[in-house]
Amino acid sequence: MRDVVVIGGGMTVFGKLPHRTPEDLGREAILAAIEDAGIRPNDVQFASWGTVYGGWCIGQRMLKEVGISGIEVLNVENACASGASAFREAWFRVATGQYDIVLAGGVESMTISPVAGKLIPPPSDDLDGQLGLTVPMFFALMMRRHMYEYGTTLEQFAKVSVKNHSHGCLNPYSQYQKELTLEEILQSRMICDPLTLLQCCPNTDGAAAVILCAKDISKRFTTRPMFVAASVLRSGDYFHRWNDVTFSDMSHKAAIAAYEMAGIGPDGLDLVELHDAFTVSEIMHYEDLGLCEKGESGSFIDSGKPWLGGDIPVNPSGGLLSKGHPLGATGVAQVVEVWRQLRGVAGKNQVEGANTAMTHVLGGYVSGLESGAVSIHIFKI
Amino acid sequence: MRDVVVIGGGMTVFGKLPHRTPEDLGREAILAAIEDAGIRPNDVQFASWGTVYGGWCIGQRMLKEVGISGIEVLNVENACASGASAFREAWFRVATGQYDIVLAGGVESMTISPVAGKLIPPPSDDLDGQLGLTVPMFFALMMRRHMYEYGTTLEQFAKVSVKNHSHGCLNPYSQYQKELTLEEILQSRMICDPLTLLQCCPNTDGAAAVILCAKDISKRFTTRPMFVAASVLRSGDYFHRWNDVTFSDMSHKAAIAAYEMAGIGPDGLDLVELHDAFTVSEIMHYEDLGLCEKGESGSFIDSGKPWLGGDIPVNPSGGLLSKGHPLGATGVAQVVEVWRQLRGVAGKNQVEGANTAMTHVLGGYVSGLESGAVSIHIFKI
Repeated sequence: MRDVVVIGGGMTVFGKLPHRTPEDLGREAILAAIEDAGIRPNDVQFASWGTVYGGWCIGQRMLKEVGISGIEVLNVENACASGASAFREAWFRVATGQYDIVLAGGVESMTISPVAGKLIPPPSDDLDGQLGLTVPMFFALMMRRHMYEYGTTLEQFAKVSVKNHSHGCLNPYSQYQKELTLEEILQSRMICDPLTLLQCCPNTDGAAAVILCAKDISKRFTTRPMFVAASVLRSGDYFHRWNDVTFSDMSHKAAIAAYEMAGIGPDGLDLVELHDAFTVSEIMHYEDLGLCEKGESGSFIDSGKPWLGGDIPVNPSGGLLSKGHPLGATGVAQVVEVWRQLRGVAGKNQVEGANTAMTHVLGGYVSGLESGAVSIHIFKI
Repeated sequence: MRDVVVIGGGMTVFGKLPHRTPEDLGREAILAAIEDAGIRPNDVQFASWGTVYGGWCIGQRMLKEVGISGIEVLNVENACASGASAFREAWFRVATGQYDIVLAGGVESMTISPVAGKLIPPPSDDLDGQLGLTVPMFFALMMRRHMYEYGTTLEQFAKVSVKNHSHGCLNPYSQYQKELTLEEILQSRMICDPLTLLQCCPNTDGAAAVILCAKDISKRFTTRPMFVAASVLRSGDYFHRWNDVTFSDMSHKAAIAAYEMAGIGPDGLDLVELHDAFTVSEIMHYEDLGLCEKGESGSFIDSGKPWLGGDIPVNPSGGLLSKGHPLGATGVAQVVEVWRQLRGVAGKNQVEGANTAMTHVLGGYVSGLESGAVSIHIFKI
């Protein structure tokens, strides 16, 4: 496998943008990535594109807007991990020597999608979902169990949202540019006890794109490429094996595989962008990814370590809670954030001296399985 | 790149099956493919799955039904070429040495999909579509132009449907098991002059799956594997370059690439499964793929060459017109047909002595481009 690097990235500002089509969002992200990489549109030899609700041939529809046609295009779906799966596809095409310069992107227009304003409908085979076990309810159960098992407090969960909204205010691409207090979060509308509204990620529209190329030709474009040190994609195992609902077994297994592939452990990471769809998700993933010991994420968030300025900032972009979560774009936007961070051009939310980073995204509630897909990438500069 | 072979395939009977979920259809196809290959479910190391309207994590949802979980799963969308794109992904994973045994599948439940009973809606950026240039209308225009340029007759177009329905009667997996006369076809309801109802593919539900593995381990499973000699996927170029609407430039380019990769030309093919969404599609693709000279497809169909028993049978399965067209499954079902044909176990529609075959599928009306995607595979036994 060849060394693969990221040489450019771009994204739209995330937000509620019902006046913009997916094509419009995608075009902006693609053009930004191409300009950032210093390539021309016709340098792109392959493109993979993530979306859930974007409709058919979404990649082709947006790429043609910037003058890219006639190449191999693959549209990829893995629920919330769609963008990360598209990134992996692009990485894989270069790593195996098939292509030299490729594009990976993702888009979602949640506010004009078929599920706009609705709970995401359970698949036809999901009896629990049909009977009312919606996604927020499920995460509320995890929250309760984490409190019971480890003494995690309501305040510790809410602090994740305080932190990520605080980070989001420093990121001009973030959907929310507003600090939130612990009280505001705890007292916001109850969604499913004890999960309140401001502990859930919002509906978001947006797009992101990155350019990858073979390391040996990257000096044509940049003196500071970002190396893809690990790429992992897994589906979930059967739920009945998931004896502990406070633990994402599939995230843990994917992290172990990624650390092995990259040759570094959690101690070697300078920052992490992880899947904080709900505050409890981030609390659990601290442990799944080995950022702290099992059961200690409450004291981990209290310690300040995952905050900007801390030992290992988590979601310096604002994460899904504040930056927003346009499903197909999320995994690619995480890479765009990391690309800015590792080059030291992130601006106000810069993690000083960051040289390594991990992105993690989990997606797709699938009845019987822990989840549909998890994807982890590790980057070095 | 390693040699990759197909060692098993399975599919459901195609038809209008609104009482069956995608999971139900997928399970049947996956089990059939696994049994045919003589592998166990946990031998499958990677799966790619094609669908357009199946909803999120469709592959994971069906694979878990047969005991496959925890592996890398990629859901792939490229409109009508979704299944072929999934097949290519699976081939690519083995060819590059990433995995040894993989599964590719596709499913569509058109009769219970969000577009059931409707015209497929034009994308938001498709002004022509919004103004009424629907897909059948577009193909009717091609038909008129082919008649004008080359003197192709209404009878010659209709003969494609006679042929494919005749073939479909011999295939127990085909949606329609009924011979049609030239008169019935020509006198069926007018959809868009001169395109009549029985010259359009039907709405279809169904699933198909195949097992691929590295050639060097295939003798564990079969003494007669089918070699993937070529795999090509391309998107369309800009429409303004398409100076001739009787010509699929992207199919032609993909065919040239596939012939080069396989080291054989159209004369070396024993049978072809091609994208006959409308009779005019098959007429055009005879020429695009080099099965006959440009403009001579009318006399080609008259000559009997593309019929079972002819020089180069086209769509011996019945094709999309008679076997049916469940979008995400179509590209994989073509491979299942070819797998039966090249082993000589196709039954009543067997092409005697077939050793080589091509599959071709084109998909995704995209405003501004000729089409979204084309995929061609060539197989040898």
